[in-house]
Amino acid sequence: MSKKDRLIYLPLGGAGEIGMNAYVYGYGPEGRERLILVDMGVTFPDMDTSPGVDLIMADLSWLAARADRLEAIFITHAHEDHVGAVGHLWPRLKAPIYARKFTAAIARLKLEDHGVSTDALNIVAARPQVVDAGPFKVQFVPVSHSIPESSALVIDTPAGRIVHSGDFKLDGNPVVGEPFNPQEWHDIARERPIHAMMCDSTNIFSHHPGRSESVLAEPLRDLVANSKGMVVATTFASNVARLKTLADAGEAAGRSVCMLGRAMKKMLTAAVETGVLTDFPPIVSPEQAAQIGRDNLMLIVTGSQGERRAASAQLSRGRYLGLALKEGDTFLFSSKTIPGNERGVIRIMNAFSEMGVDVIDDHNGLYHVSGHANRPDLEAVHDLMKPTMLIPMHGEHRHLREHVKLALAKGIAAEVATNGTMVDLTGTRPEVVEYIETGRIYLDGAVLIGAMDGVVRDRIRMALNGHVLATIIVDEDDVPLGDAWVEIMGLPALGRNGTSLADTLEADLAEFLDRVDAKTVKNDDKMDEAIRRLIRQVSVEEIGRKPEVTVVISRLMAD
Amino acid sequence: MSKKDRLIYLPLGGAGEIGMNAYVYGYGPEGRERLILVDMGVTFPDMDTSPGVDLIMADLSWLAARADRLEAIFITHAHEDHVGAVGHLWPRLKAPIYARKFTAAIARLKLEDHGVSTDALNIVAARPQVVDAGPFKVQFVPVSHSIPESSALVIDTPAGRIVHSGDFKLDGNPVVGEPFNPQEWHDIARERPIHAMMCDSTNIFSHHPGRSESVLAEPLRDLVANSKGMVVATTFASNVARLKTLADAGEAAGRSVCMLGRAMKKMLTAAVETGVLTDFPPIVSPEQAAQIGRDNLMLIVTGSQGERRAASAQLSRGRYLGLALKEGDTFLFSSKTIPGNERGVIRIMNAFSEMGVDVIDDHNGLYHVSGHANRPDLEAVHDLMKPTMLIPMHGEHRHLREHVKLALAKGIAAEVATNGTMVDLTGTRPEVVEYIETGRIYLDGAVLIGAMDGVVRDRIRMALNGHVLATIIVDEDDVPLGDAWVEIMGLPALGRNGTSLADTLEADLAEFLDRVDAKTVKNDDKMDEAIRRLIRQVSVEEIGRKPEVTVVISRLMAD
Repeated sequence: MSKKDRLIYLPLGGAGEIGMNAYVYGYGPEGRERLILVDMGVTFPDMDTSPGVDLIMADLSWLAARADRLEAIFITHAHEDHVGAVGHLWPRLKAPIYARKFTAAIARLKLEDHGVSTDALNIVAARPQVVDAGPFKVQFVPVSHSIPESSALVIDTPAGRIVHSGDFKLDGNPVVGEPFNPQEWHDIARERPIHAMMCDSTNIFSHHPGRSESVLAEPLRDLVANSKGMVVATTFASNVARLKTLADAGEAAGRSVCMLGRAMKKMLTAAVETGVLTDFPPIVSPEQAAQIGRDNLMLIVTGSQGERRAASAQLSRGRYLGLALKEGDTFLFSSKTIPGNERGVIRIMNAFSEMGVDVIDDHNGLYHVSGHANRPDLEAVHDLMKPTMLIPMHGEHRHLREHVKLALAKGIAAEVATNGTMVDLTGTRPEVVEYIETGRIYLDGAVLIGAMDGVVRDRIRMALNGHVLATIIVDEDDVPLGDAWVEIMGLPALGRNGTSLADTLEADLAEFLDRVDAKTVKNDDKMDEAIRRLIRQVSVEEIGRKPEVTVVISRLMAD
Repeated sequence: MSKKDRLIYLPLGGAGEIGMNAYVYGYGPEGRERLILVDMGVTFPDMDTSPGVDLIMADLSWLAARADRLEAIFITHAHEDHVGAVGHLWPRLKAPIYARKFTAAIARLKLEDHGVSTDALNIVAARPQVVDAGPFKVQFVPVSHSIPESSALVIDTPAGRIVHSGDFKLDGNPVVGEPFNPQEWHDIARERPIHAMMCDSTNIFSHHPGRSESVLAEPLRDLVANSKGMVVATTFASNVARLKTLADAGEAAGRSVCMLGRAMKKMLTAAVETGVLTDFPPIVSPEQAAQIGRDNLMLIVTGSQGERRAASAQLSRGRYLGLALKEGDTFLFSSKTIPGNERGVIRIMNAFSEMGVDVIDDHNGLYHVSGHANRPDLEAVHDLMKPTMLIPMHGEHRHLREHVKLALAKGIAAEVATNGTMVDLTGTRPEVVEYIETGRIYLDGAVLIGAMDGVVRDRIRMALNGHVLATIIVDEDDVPLGDAWVEIMGLPALGRNGTSLADTLEADLAEFLDRVDAKTVKNDDKMDEAIRRLIRQVSVEEIGRKPEVTVVISRLMAD
């Protein structure tokens, strides 16, 4: 370690939010550090802040501008918020990607979906295999989570050993995949002291110890065994352990099991092909399922978050792939509702209620456990690893802050570092050295746009205010032709006195064009401004709101 | 009771949703029943389903068309979802309004806000006062809830006694306002058997007995006493008892109390003026508060649901009325987050976290209790009243259905009746006799529009798909002028190959205009259709989405 080298940490996504994880580590002389990236995730849009957007990902421009210094990309696990952006953003980085087998299988599908070569993708075994990436030596250490093969990273650097926790919980019996192994972590910390730990903060506000995935087997078996009619269960498609527990419960009750939803099939196939999942009960196709009596059938379906196009929502609207729920059937949410998704989930619950279907959700924790370490579990991990410093990640600001308070109370140096905060980890305490401009990139249809480009802002404005279009024609002599055309969209047809808004606007515009002075007519900007102001003013009078206005001035040219 | 008379119940709002309550009762010969209306509430819009809308209320057209048969309107309590539409919709009904003193004070403000005469408003005392309304004799019976003076209605009809529960909980010590009095209800049921009960269903899924408002006094006092810096608490403005408990806690800790937010002041004033609230601690103005040391100050503010314009959101964005939070202050949500409001609330929590403010919410029920009867409480009320039949109200479909199941299990005849379901209550079991077309009315700026008018649908489409405007000019000889103008709004400026979307569209349109046949040019509909199709097709190629398209064809006329 040369005197001038430094070890830096820079979250570009995932710190100050739950979603779109992207964490950079660097080592070397200032401004010339060799870099690695951990995770390339997405987050999901919503109508309030990102209507019409397909996916949201971290703006990796800072990293793309330094791609020549990027040694490698590591993917900790196959959740969308960790791997979802790999197809979209890898072409801007072009560094080797390392992941374990199952995760790599999902990453491969994502690269292929975008027609990106998969040559950069490398499958790595768990520790003790070591990936050399410039000054970094990286090992994947299995941890338990809500997807198979989730891994923490042990990152050895000349400035010390880093543990990047990834997403984890303390589960000794996760049904599918490896348990959390305290002995291994004990060994890792004894082998070389943990200089810094970047740690999952999702459940910092959950004060009870977390529960094992395996505790669900019995309640789920009982529920399915005691249900009449068709049983339909939904959960996160990537929770392969849960899929197995649910399918086992169905099989134990003598029911044929049918899986609905593309994401679920993709995950199951990858899990079976990579060998992480064995002895899954036989499944039947939707066509076969349609021929089976409903008392002998169990469906496991996508859409636990109320997504409009997923199987659960389709079933809530009626027949889907030949299958339909009816009075006396049971629909189980073996999941929790992520904050912000409540409306969609409740809509589905009520639709099923209207069909006479009994909807069961997870009010008492009987049918779902979280995939993240709760507060006492996090404390246990702090105690096990004894890091010199701790930087919380994978959390909103309130989670990060609370996690820092917890660490400080234990005498661990800690710092809140949100997206764009570059932290120097070289010494014995984290030191904020720079703020990098970061942000969000939207996948919008087929193109990537910046969150601040104004595109989505304009959509929100049209949604809130409606849109008025005014078309004016000015003739060869700079005289406006008498009539103006007005079209309205997303606005009441009639104003408060019952007269047509469009007609009123056209009449007032015609009057304006009649008396407008020649100088204004010649100036597009002035015309635009005057017409816009007129339309907004008349609209306020007529309908009590100021719409968005687009003015098109067409000027006829002399032949 | 003549042989042909019947007793009917018809919810027009509030049954199949939580919000915009409006329930009709009728008695008389079929089609000539004399009617009463209970409650005229609103519900609140959201970006997903009603962007730009100001308020949502029940479509009372059915009732308006029969206004000559409407004897009276009764308002059970002053929550927005029960009284909020009175200013907007009363002019369509024009029947006398009856309410108790505090409720009437709030209703009066709403009528005045809309310039509606308050002559129709009548203040009624609690039972034993009786309001005669045609065949109905109506008494207001105090119940406990989360607002003063909440009342159930005892409605005597020739066909039997009805209890309309209103919103209630079983609280023997509600801090402000009357307790729930089991003895009085026992007497009411003994006086005359309860033929039918329309019952609050909000908390049917809460399996533990409800808790009294009074249990919060001690935890809140402790919390405020043990906090350093400024303490800011938010709750529902109408929960006058909570305001008092919070203010008492502030006073006990030696803090001056300041209230922020228009709704809160309105409620407090009405409560004091009508005498329902006495001995509230002295309050200081924001100007005075700004001069008081933060350790000696407590703010009670509006905005517990994250509303963007309320005091809590203002404070989360910085200084508000001269007051600002900072590191070490405490912000308390003495409230629950209504499903659908999570994002707004979380946004505020994180903003305060960034300031270093400790945010405390109600995870453990220490600082908030619900205003509605839980399942065991509902059962206790069923047992107390022993109604012959029960129709659940004030709930989504899943709540109503669960409540019906509970009643049926107790041997009470029960039926799910959602908005528009007319139920004949004359016999010993509810009988659905008709479905009335109902819906929602939006207050949109200054005008009322129907939810199905397409206005909001167009807004949502523009938000999801963006908007392209194409302007074409056709000359006197039906020849399109070569250039087309295209404006885009809410769409990416550049297509997937980096070329301008608007330029590409204009070029392709120009080419189309060049080769279009004369017959098409003469036909507005055909032109519109062809241009729309072209724009959508090119947009899919360029940006991967189909925008909303507005085509304006201007035809020049020969002079």
